[in-house]
Amino acid sequence: MSIFQKSIVLPPFARGFHLITDTIEREIESCLPTIATGILHVFVQHTSASLTINENADPSVRQDFESHINEMIPENAPYYVHTYEGPDDMPAHIKASVFGSSVSVPITDGQLNLGTWQGIYFGEHRDYGGSRKLVISVYY
Amino acid sequence: MSIFQKSIVLPPFARGFHLITDTIEREIESCLPTIATGILHVFVQHTSASLTINENADPSVRQDFESHINEMIPENAPYYVHTYEGPDDMPAHIKASVFGSSVSVPITDGQLNLGTWQGIYFGEHRDYGGSRKLVISVYY
Amino acid sequence: MSIFQKSIVLPPFARGFHLITDTIEREIESCLPTIATGILHVFVQHTSASLTINENADPSVRQDFESHINEMIPENAPYYVHTYEGPDDMPAHIKASVFGSSVSVPITDGQLNLGTWQGIYFGEHRDYGGSRKLVISVYY
Repeated sequence: MSIFQKSIVLPPFARGFHLITDTIEREIESCLPTIATGILHVFVQHTSASLTINENADPSVRQDFESHINEMIPENAPYYVHTYEGPDDMPAHIKASVFGSSVSVPITDGQLNLGTWQGIYFGEHRDYGGSRKLVISVYY
Repeated sequence: MSIFQKSIVLPPFARGFHLITDTIEREIESCLPTIATGILHVFVQHTSASLTINENADPSVRQDFESHINEMIPENAPYYVHTYEGPDDMPAHIKASVFGSSVSVPITDGQLNLGTWQGIYFGEHRDYGGSRKLVISVYY
Repeated sequence: MSIFQKSIVLPPFARGFHLITDTIEREIESCLPTIATGILHVFVQHTSASLTINENADPSVRQDFESHINEMIPENAPYYVHTYEGPDDMPAHIKASVFGSSVSVPITDGQLNLGTWQGIYFGEHRDYGGSRKLVISVYY
């Protein structure tokens, strides 16, 4: 078994959820087609952004994710103490942990073995998060 | 190190949380007893069902999971735009990402190294989700 | 590829979120410096405690995590059926699944490849959870 690993930088995304399946596939295209069975692990090196897997077709799903998570983990909650980086900061930390900082996806016959409707979401939870770093690992 | 991988189909489950530890163990019984140290990875190929690990003994825990998640991520929120697949659809997507699409469990001395009270839950978040596909990977 | 695996016991922690990055690093110091590329997997063998990755510098972030999760998953919800272990028990189960029972972190050049501000949080969700067992696996 071997590990292929690389770090990449995502360009700044607007606050919300974004499909990055194609980006990830492109970054591992040197090894992916040769892998019979393996696992892809993607890790975000930030505490106010997240990775998750969800619906890859209708942008309104991503819109509703953002609407609902802002209700579930609101800004300006009266009990927040960590407020000096702005009202979007503390909710962004909690959102990052609720969705998680990594996803792992089986690789089968040279392809990500995602379901038909699954894609990898990058969740940007700050208003201006800037560039974000990912570490991609493939073991096979 | 090697990878054992297989796809399985779960029969339709009612909306809610269901223990599938025995099912998973049965599907890997050809390799599990021989593995001194490894990791089990289970992945659900759907965006309205989830996998998580929780209490394996009292069905009322699973009942309360369903009750609470329906409060935390309700149907018919006024801000949902993605509504054309029915009121259970958009909450199901969000629930899937809050719990996650995979679990990974250490394998030690030929057994899943779960705690005494831990089991693998399958979360069906649609009213009628139908059969669901999992990809099981074991690396060791 | 190889797997290093060990079980450890954490001392009792107060209810809330606690940084355990240093503890984990110390437990794998016999192999970590020699690993060019790998993955760390940490698994908690309990259903009322969790692992997640978040901000490692300001304790007020961990305080706000605890404040908000107690709002998001409250005690004494009228629909809870599983109440015989006390009001902190059922919320602890749900919190454990929302944050998750494992984290996985890339290893690069002999170090955990965490972002600058990332640390591993242990979430104790019971009032008196007692000692807690983790299984640490490193594959490389």
